Amino acid sequence: MIETAKTEDGDPIKDITAKAGVFSQEEVDCVRDIWEEYLSFGADSTGYHFIVERQEGRVSGFACYGYRDLTDGVYDLFWIAVDPGFRRDGVGRRLLTACEDIVRTLGGRMIIAETSGKPLYEATRAFYLGTGYKAEAVIKDFYSAGDDLVIFVKRL
Amino acid sequence: MIETAKTEDGDPIKDITAKAGVFSQEEVDCVRDIWEEYLSFGADSTGYHFIVERQEGRVSGFACYGYRDLTDGVYDLFWIAVDPGFRRDGVGRRLLTACEDIVRTLGGRMIIAETSGKPLYEATRAFYLGTGYKAEAVIKDFYSAGDDLVIFVKRL
Repeated sequence: MIETAKTEDGDPIKDITAKAGVFSQEEVDCVRDIWEEYLSFGADSTGYHFIVERQEGRVSGFACYGYRDLTDGVYDLFWIAVDPGFRRDGVGRRLLTACEDIVRTLGGRMIIAETSGKPLYEATRAFYLGTGYKAEAVIKDFYSAGDDLVIFVKRL
Repeated sequence: MIETAKTEDGDPIKDITAKAGVFSQEEVDCVRDIWEEYLSFGADSTGYHFIVERQEGRVSGFACYGYRDLTDGVYDLFWIAVDPGFRRDGVGRRLLTACEDIVRTLGGRMIIAETSGKPLYEATRAFYLGTGYKAEAVIKDFYSAGDDLVIFVKRL
């Protein structure tokens, strides 16, 4: 079951981010910070919307998306991560589809997912390519020297 | 003289944004909102740094830049605008150079300036190309149908 994240999902979300194995400490801290913002001020005011998938009461994965200011219907997929104990079960794909369905409902027409060009993120890039996203832009050495930004786009 | 924007620069900054002739009402409102945030909470806490050029006591133009989270030394140039009464005087170029000098001092290695691919922004794009920026990425129909995002990059 996928639904809007509740207060008690904070710990599993932070735990999954740390365990995912692809995020730096700075990124783990960033998820923690935007979760706290979301919890304190709500999705509408912060622009961060968290959803979780629950399996038998446990959070198997989460996603965080939000409207990109100054665009007509563009949404960013900020974060998506799956608990390693639930890998290869389609959790990521179901969360992504849920985000897309919500964005469509909101009148959105495009989702942007930014990720790294490093080998560590090859599975992430394959995931987006396998779910209908296209790598439409690359900024060389963006995150750091040797670590490119790859911008994946899906037109809904 | 270029310096950090002060409280009294808010009105001229908002006025210049409205008069610039290239920004939508939503964009004008966005500059107003981030100015108010900057004024209330400061540059370090909001991530929005405003500088102005002053000529004989009048604000001739302003720029707003900030560090891009989760990168090693990437800065966004969020806004740059010149009072139409001071056009063709090199104000924009001096503000851009000032931003670049500050970013270098902060250890930054890259500046990103995002703009539109529409004909209305042709002068803006020519400005970036003429000051050492390269159009490294385009996302078609980003802002709206027919209005592409063009990402200009300068490596410092």
